[in-house]
Amino acid sequence: MQFTSDNAGRVHPKVMEALLRANEGYASPYGTDEIMIRVTAKIREIFEAPQAAVYLVPLGTAANSLILATFAQPWDTIFCHQTAHIQEDECNAPEFYTGGAKLTLVEGANGKMDAEALKDAIGAEESRGVHGPQRGPISITQATEKGTVHSLEELQALCDVAKHFGVRAHMDGARFSNALVHLGCSPAEMTWKAGIDAVSFGGTKNGLMGVEAVIFFDPSSAWEFELRRKRAAQLISKHRYLSAQMETYLADDLWLELARSSNLAASTLARGLEQSPMARLHNPPQSNMLFADLPRKAHQHLHEKGASYYLWGGSLEGGDPDEPLTARFVTDWAASDENTQAFLAHLRDV
Amino acid sequence: MQFTSDNAGRVHPKVMEALLRANEGYASPYGTDEIMIRVTAKIREIFEAPQAAVYLVPLGTAANSLILATFAQPWDTIFCHQTAHIQEDECNAPEFYTGGAKLTLVEGANGKMDAEALKDAIGAEESRGVHGPQRGPISITQATEKGTVHSLEELQALCDVAKHFGVRAHMDGARFSNALVHLGCSPAEMTWKAGIDAVSFGGTKNGLMGVEAVIFFDPSSAWEFELRRKRAAQLISKHRYLSAQMETYLADDLWLELARSSNLAASTLARGLEQSPMARLHNPPQSNMLFADLPRKAHQHLHEKGASYYLWGGSLEGGDPDEPLTARFVTDWAASDENTQAFLAHLRDV
Amino acid sequence: MQFTSDNAGRVHPKVMEALLRANEGYASPYGTDEIMIRVTAKIREIFEAPQAAVYLVPLGTAANSLILATFAQPWDTIFCHQTAHIQEDECNAPEFYTGGAKLTLVEGANGKMDAEALKDAIGAEESRGVHGPQRGPISITQATEKGTVHSLEELQALCDVAKHFGVRAHMDGARFSNALVHLGCSPAEMTWKAGIDAVSFGGTKNGLMGVEAVIFFDPSSAWEFELRRKRAAQLISKHRYLSAQMETYLADDLWLELARSSNLAASTLARGLEQSPMARLHNPPQSNMLFADLPRKAHQHLHEKGASYYLWGGSLEGGDPDEPLTARFVTDWAASDENTQAFLAHLRDV
Amino acid sequence: MQFTSDNAGRVHPKVMEALLRANEGYASPYGTDEIMIRVTAKIREIFEAPQAAVYLVPLGTAANSLILATFAQPWDTIFCHQTAHIQEDECNAPEFYTGGAKLTLVEGANGKMDAEALKDAIGAEESRGVHGPQRGPISITQATEKGTVHSLEELQALCDVAKHFGVRAHMDGARFSNALVHLGCSPAEMTWKAGIDAVSFGGTKNGLMGVEAVIFFDPSSAWEFELRRKRAAQLISKHRYLSAQMETYLADDLWLELARSSNLAASTLARGLEQSPMARLHNPPQSNMLFADLPRKAHQHLHEKGASYYLWGGSLEGGDPDEPLTARFVTDWAASDENTQAFLAHLRDV
Repeated sequence: MQFTSDNAGRVHPKVMEALLRANEGYASPYGTDEIMIRVTAKIREIFEAPQAAVYLVPLGTAANSLILATFAQPWDTIFCHQTAHIQEDECNAPEFYTGGAKLTLVEGANGKMDAEALKDAIGAEESRGVHGPQRGPISITQATEKGTVHSLEELQALCDVAKHFGVRAHMDGARFSNALVHLGCSPAEMTWKAGIDAVSFGGTKNGLMGVEAVIFFDPSSAWEFELRRKRAAQLISKHRYLSAQMETYLADDLWLELARSSNLAASTLARGLEQSPMARLHNPPQSNMLFADLPRKAHQHLHEKGASYYLWGGSLEGGDPDEPLTARFVTDWAASDENTQAFLAHLRDV
Repeated sequence: MQFTSDNAGRVHPKVMEALLRANEGYASPYGTDEIMIRVTAKIREIFEAPQAAVYLVPLGTAANSLILATFAQPWDTIFCHQTAHIQEDECNAPEFYTGGAKLTLVEGANGKMDAEALKDAIGAEESRGVHGPQRGPISITQATEKGTVHSLEELQALCDVAKHFGVRAHMDGARFSNALVHLGCSPAEMTWKAGIDAVSFGGTKNGLMGVEAVIFFDPSSAWEFELRRKRAAQLISKHRYLSAQMETYLADDLWLELARSSNLAASTLARGLEQSPMARLHNPPQSNMLFADLPRKAHQHLHEKGASYYLWGGSLEGGDPDEPLTARFVTDWAASDENTQAFLAHLRDV
Repeated sequence: MQFTSDNAGRVHPKVMEALLRANEGYASPYGTDEIMIRVTAKIREIFEAPQAAVYLVPLGTAANSLILATFAQPWDTIFCHQTAHIQEDECNAPEFYTGGAKLTLVEGANGKMDAEALKDAIGAEESRGVHGPQRGPISITQATEKGTVHSLEELQALCDVAKHFGVRAHMDGARFSNALVHLGCSPAEMTWKAGIDAVSFGGTKNGLMGVEAVIFFDPSSAWEFELRRKRAAQLISKHRYLSAQMETYLADDLWLELARSSNLAASTLARGLEQSPMARLHNPPQSNMLFADLPRKAHQHLHEKGASYYLWGGSLEGGDPDEPLTARFVTDWAASDENTQAFLAHLRDV
Repeated sequence: MQFTSDNAGRVHPKVMEALLRANEGYASPYGTDEIMIRVTAKIREIFEAPQAAVYLVPLGTAANSLILATFAQPWDTIFCHQTAHIQEDECNAPEFYTGGAKLTLVEGANGKMDAEALKDAIGAEESRGVHGPQRGPISITQATEKGTVHSLEELQALCDVAKHFGVRAHMDGARFSNALVHLGCSPAEMTWKAGIDAVSFGGTKNGLMGVEAVIFFDPSSAWEFELRRKRAAQLISKHRYLSAQMETYLADDLWLELARSSNLAASTLARGLEQSPMARLHNPPQSNMLFADLPRKAHQHLHEKGASYYLWGGSLEGGDPDEPLTARFVTDWAASDENTQAFLAHLRDV
């Protein structure tokens, strides 16, 4: 009954096979392997973006930080939601990679920046001329850290604000695939057609061993990005093994299949929680991540029975057994229905 | 009718005389001049801190950034109020000097962090282990950017939170003197006795040409600070001219006299504003800075008559003549009563 | 006839099997997997260093930069050889990770710093007090970028200089194993017994997919290192796949076996080159990398026949057919004797 | 008998008078004062550069670092002489301000880069593509740290190399005036006509209290520079006092008169040294700085008699009384002939 993190899950067998296939003879290192040529072509095709510059890095934080460093000057401020991964979970990596840019936190419900609040926040900067931070890019997390998904209209509204102020828009797509299959739209619609300039396109949380693609729809920053990647020690030497993962991920819609599988597991879990009189779901299921309140005694019982997930503030121990504590549940591509049903059965036992 | 900024004011004649006196023969450069020995001794005496490490820099932003860089690791977050100078007016200098630390904004009325809100904010960090930013120093602005002054109890409460979490406390004292004469306490009471670890002790806004002292009550960071100051190009070569300003500032309580003078001008102005049916003062006068709402038509009339001050959001032009717009009024040591009375007379004419 | 780079080579089959074995069920991410516990124990055993702090990162540049950032303040200078990887091949990554430390280049033959030159260079710093850069760590590359190997006496002499000045010693061991089997000593002798404080212990160039260990013999910097690794986006999420590679690498002396294999290939190649009247070997074979001068016409013939390796300055095209041009030959664990013999046969044909 | 440093000297009385004159009423802060408008116009006129962007900062290290940060990306390397102030005397300030660029040291006699050596050094970079540091600006010190002055031909040759490789040329002109009066050319000839893109135009060492001008002949980097200056805490609040110094410095050729005075003092001293059988002058006098070898016993005698100057390596104490030790002699605008003659008399007494 594993709902801790999609980083705890295993790699899809097809991806392991791809690694074995790639493990023949010599290959040009540092991103110049032949598989990468095919990966670039495939991503351009999938995103309907024939000019896009495409790179691979081993970690989502690297993808985010390198894109933001390319878009933000050190004297700029980046606009994101309070719960953004770049704010809460990267130990100041964006500040490190940008050379000291600031993050301005923008309010909004359900892990999403509110477009009006964003407008006010960007508008407020530069009223002080050289004295305050300058306007930098916006960063949208899709799916959000709350497990919710921006609609195309919401994405468009945020990007419109960015365009209005002449700043660029980044999408942290660590769970891009989960959001995409929820919306049922095309990758182009969820990105450049809505106004996104660059994407951190996640693979690791969705069945890869450790690969994220960086996609710039306007390739004019490509060389700068390559220098930043190298200088940051993010240009992997035996790069063919990153390329091979990504190639298989994109072949035969494997990436979409895996995202559907993890989203389905979250939906099943959500339905079960909704039927429990003790549980209060924060949002209907939209991706592979759910937040729900359960009384402490329920958490205690579930943990005793072997369920594994994070409490979001609050502690299992002590206190009122009826006090509601928030749980984060994350499902991955390999989540089994059996596992979910066992969890729900234990919940009913409380 | 100048109320724009205490940076617009002139240098006190005694300070100019001190510069002339210092301008004889040769003097050891880079902070090793003989006047500096006397300045250090005097500051230690005034602050009742015989061990304190004392340095001079030409700019308040330099003092703040260098202290914060000495107290904060690049992976830390610094806790300050939304309106702090380090957040709003230093174009990311703290992020630059610290090598990319973050600033966490803490709520609170009247430009002051609320101690409970501070406790929550510091407590929240590190719940994520290595993933989130780590707990860094707090920074308190005294007097605040709203012109208010923390009471000794308020300072103590904030520093107690810092001590509880094992982080250090910095005071941005660009208007230290104005706050001190308002409270009528000793420099020691307003700093280390309340729990402050280092102060940016301002002189420039209070009659000097360009000198701020950096005071560390615990001198163990002294050598690190000296290297940071040099590396940041803040170690002034002909340093005797900084020392001479500070020496005269501290002699015969000149610094207190000047602060009383500018505070008095602000009080006079405040009393006049209170008597106007059109004006709404945000806070009673506590330092040399006031915020007040006046209808647009009043601002228009005053500007026509030659009054000079900043509008804080909003614009003189267009719109409803009765719409209230916020003004910031800053007085300096040389403010004349005549000037203030003329302003108030024009206000009555509206 | 591949002699381009050990980064172009494939992963050893046992390592691929280990990845497949690790690909079961859920595992704690971000370095907290159970395999890592065993890796740490094994490295401590191999290095006879029961207190050592051990970490894994995906890239040698990351290992080097993170160690150097932990050992050097931004105002320090790091002492290394002109040909060091950190100087020539990391696009200023050490400067980035350290927040702007300097590299001081120390002379010496065959890719090795001369101990006397090192002493002069470290001694020269700090004569300027706060004005010049301060003394930082030394960094020794073992095996060197010239394919040579420091003797234990040479290592000791360099580390003695570091100890004399109170600075720490780092070993860039991207080809640690190749040097070790050449010397025939123990890992402890080649590191902490000689005075080394931390090692970048390479795996990628010797049969892994992408893993380097960071080893601190004194664990007091461990927590700082962990924060630096996370902030630099070098803490890999699905970490078990790094651990699994390293575990297999160290089991049954596979790492030594692979290094012996690549060193042997280089020896065979060197013997063949020595027998050619046209070739001039820079150094006798000591690791898996050789430098040799051959006339342009020989390079042209060999490239036509399909040999692949770098020219080190100079160009195949144009010019005098008899002009000697330097080649770098790198062998890897999978180098076949057939391959080498074919190359030598073509050389004899020139 | 003060020959320690031109930073130890006093401010010219006309400059003090200018400060007193500027000390009237209110003035717009942060570089927007009216005197600055006149300073900009005057510098444009003097340099025959009507488009130049002109700024003032309080310190030469700040001027150098800010210009280099504007010209160099963090992944670049800056080319300078081993003895450059930016390499030896700024505690890694250029590395700090650039965000971690490297300095490549170029050989050359008498404190000057050799143009051929510069060509080789710049040419060598980028042979490694993304792996090595990229080509950044060159930095020329005029007059050099050896007291020598580049001829116009030498400047042109260095700048031609820069232009050939498409990188920009910076002049560290801390002793610009001393070099200029030595060459007897125009400011334009010594800068943009020779190919210089930006100058740190020194005033502090030549009679000011603490002001250096930054001059960009192409103003396209102006706004970036302004943000960098503010973010670095180098935008002085009461800026009128910097402007006033510079205005007076440039009026009635005061700057040239002061430089002639200090150069003359150095010439007189040089002639005296040349006549001493014990002294060996490194170079004929070209600016206000000389290096000469004297036996230890001469130094001991001179120091006993009260002469003050730096030994450049070596120590007064112990050792062979006849061992030659190098002295650095610096004269300033206020150097008296009496002072010099007294020194030379003591020298003759040895």
